[in-house]
Amino acid sequence: MTGIDDLPIRDELRGQSPYGAPQLDVPVRLNTNENPHPLPEPLVARIAERVAEAARNLNRYPDRDAVELRTELARYLTRTTGYEVGTANVWAANGSNEVLQQLLQAFGGPGRTAIGFEPSYSMHALIARGTGTAWISGPRHEDFRLDVAAAREVIAERRPHVVFVCSPNNPTGTAVDADTVLALYEAAQAARPSLVIVDEAYGEFSHRPSLLPLIDGRPNLVVSRTMSKAFGAAGLRLGYLAAHPAVVDAVQLVRLPYHLSAVTQATALAALEHTDTLLGYVEQLKAERDRLVTELRAMGCEVTESDANFVQFGRFDGEGGAHAVWRALLDRGVLVRDNGVPGRLRVTAGTPAENDAFLDAMRAVLKENNR
Amino acid sequence: MTGIDDLPIRDELRGQSPYGAPQLDVPVRLNTNENPHPLPEPLVARIAERVAEAARNLNRYPDRDAVELRTELARYLTRTTGYEVGTANVWAANGSNEVLQQLLQAFGGPGRTAIGFEPSYSMHALIARGTGTAWISGPRHEDFRLDVAAAREVIAERRPHVVFVCSPNNPTGTAVDADTVLALYEAAQAARPSLVIVDEAYGEFSHRPSLLPLIDGRPNLVVSRTMSKAFGAAGLRLGYLAAHPAVVDAVQLVRLPYHLSAVTQATALAALEHTDTLLGYVEQLKAERDRLVTELRAMGCEVTESDANFVQFGRFDGEGGAHAVWRALLDRGVLVRDNGVPGRLRVTAGTPAENDAFLDAMRAVLKENNR
Repeated sequence: MTGIDDLPIRDELRGQSPYGAPQLDVPVRLNTNENPHPLPEPLVARIAERVAEAARNLNRYPDRDAVELRTELARYLTRTTGYEVGTANVWAANGSNEVLQQLLQAFGGPGRTAIGFEPSYSMHALIARGTGTAWISGPRHEDFRLDVAAAREVIAERRPHVVFVCSPNNPTGTAVDADTVLALYEAAQAARPSLVIVDEAYGEFSHRPSLLPLIDGRPNLVVSRTMSKAFGAAGLRLGYLAAHPAVVDAVQLVRLPYHLSAVTQATALAALEHTDTLLGYVEQLKAERDRLVTELRAMGCEVTESDANFVQFGRFDGEGGAHAVWRALLDRGVLVRDNGVPGRLRVTAGTPAENDAFLDAMRAVLKENNR
Repeated sequence: MTGIDDLPIRDELRGQSPYGAPQLDVPVRLNTNENPHPLPEPLVARIAERVAEAARNLNRYPDRDAVELRTELARYLTRTTGYEVGTANVWAANGSNEVLQQLLQAFGGPGRTAIGFEPSYSMHALIARGTGTAWISGPRHEDFRLDVAAAREVIAERRPHVVFVCSPNNPTGTAVDADTVLALYEAAQAARPSLVIVDEAYGEFSHRPSLLPLIDGRPNLVVSRTMSKAFGAAGLRLGYLAAHPAVVDAVQLVRLPYHLSAVTQATALAALEHTDTLLGYVEQLKAERDRLVTELRAMGCEVTESDANFVQFGRFDGEGGAHAVWRALLDRGVLVRDNGVPGRLRVTAGTPAENDAFLDAMRAVLKENNR
């Protein structure tokens, strides 16, 4: 039987497995940081309407530059961050993964290096590999905050072409302040002209203001965002970035032409008409996230401060470690994520009922373990 | 003012411009091989219905493996080619461009080479560049048929890792027969284990049967397809491939997770329910394509035999060459494509009225030139 390894694939892919959380059929799924709120029915109706309009012209290629969508995304960013950006500052693609892939194709790639401070969003390293960019794993403090001094040191020494800063950081939930980003930006530019990517996929859930205004006067700084989380639209695959217009011009040199379908553009535009309702859900999720932190601490867990829609908790250093607890929760019908951070697990803030189910399961598991 | 060249982009991107046909506002647009038939209203309604269903679950990630869609695409291929393929043989992505990009990420990339026989679809070379794959421009006969002897020679000499065969070929319209593909496949495998990609984006318009059955017993042969042309859904961005299941496993190592949105999957599934109607339009377009060939020849043009929904015609070797004719047609409100093939232009088969407008404009331009 012919398998992958019988094919002439690249050597570094041999023996690898595809990325992706297990998709298990479980009553309470809190493992992929999805927004638990379905889109409201008026928005569903509006999506059907706008997609039908787009479908009447589906025999034609979509707007290659997605101008209307980028204009509305710019308006959203301006309104929610107070920092004014325009259409020329914004670019959109199929999920922020594709945005990051395009950035690495233009600014990373063969013979170049990218750094991230780990544990962080594991796709950063995978997209680097996929684009032929060498990956450097940078350090963090033991409490998962960015270690500025250590980060500056490794940047000065390794001189990466691309620097990833994830804020709030996945899977730890840790937000980064503007001064930290500026320190890393300066260290990066001192080492060589290089691109600094601030991944704000979970930005709307943070207590801190967006880092978006830092793009002002810094053409080598990019902020990436997504509609997957705050807009409750993980199924839509719509990521975007804000940066100097020259960065937007640069990604157009590597983007596949017509990469963003007319139905995706239509659906995203419909969702942007309902921003207020969707941001209302974000406030509810922040409250639930804070409740998870409080309750887990009350159980005696060590919980990482979270600015996202998920919470990292532990420590599980006993027999089987974090994975044994992951398994015990799964046995109770609750799926959380084991991101491979020693002694820690990550739980997504779900609906109040889902969070109750998780907290009950956790109490039962801890009781079991202490017996 | 900061421009692209002030950014730390890759050296090979400096001075480049983004790919894409000019998007001009002209009465008759026959330049991008779009299908001129809008989707029928019952299909538009069905798309709205299926997308609304998908939108109710849009807060969740889409089916990462697009199983239902791949199953229906496999059924379509089986029914229209007579060669049985199943879900495990099929993979789908955002346009066949993304399919090809994933294949080059897995089988090409830094330190590897790909070959195409030019003139051919110019994205093959661009996607190679975007994935760090070195590009080899292979030869064709003067009449644009594949030159098998010359192709075998260059394959034996250069030993590429990936071989592109485009059939029907864009922009020439030339189809390739099974024996030619087999000869190239054998030459390629004799040089080194390598992937042969048969790009059948225009396959449904051909007089010849699909080359799909050639995947039988040849795990290093892939056929790529698209819903942009025959399905009249360029705006949908849905490309797919059929190959040995191991190839499908291999692209999953490099695909971005959840690359295909729930709305794209829903829309494609709706279109596949209406295959018979859409294939009826294909028959009309084939008749129009044949009429274009006949009429252009009657005007004294040299026309390349076409198996696609477009026609390459010339020769314009006089002052200004093909581009002057392109310009003169544009002045008469008809946009065709100058693909850079010396002395030739390419016109898409449009509606009967659009084709009449093009033919009238051509007669006027030729009369003008002969004065």
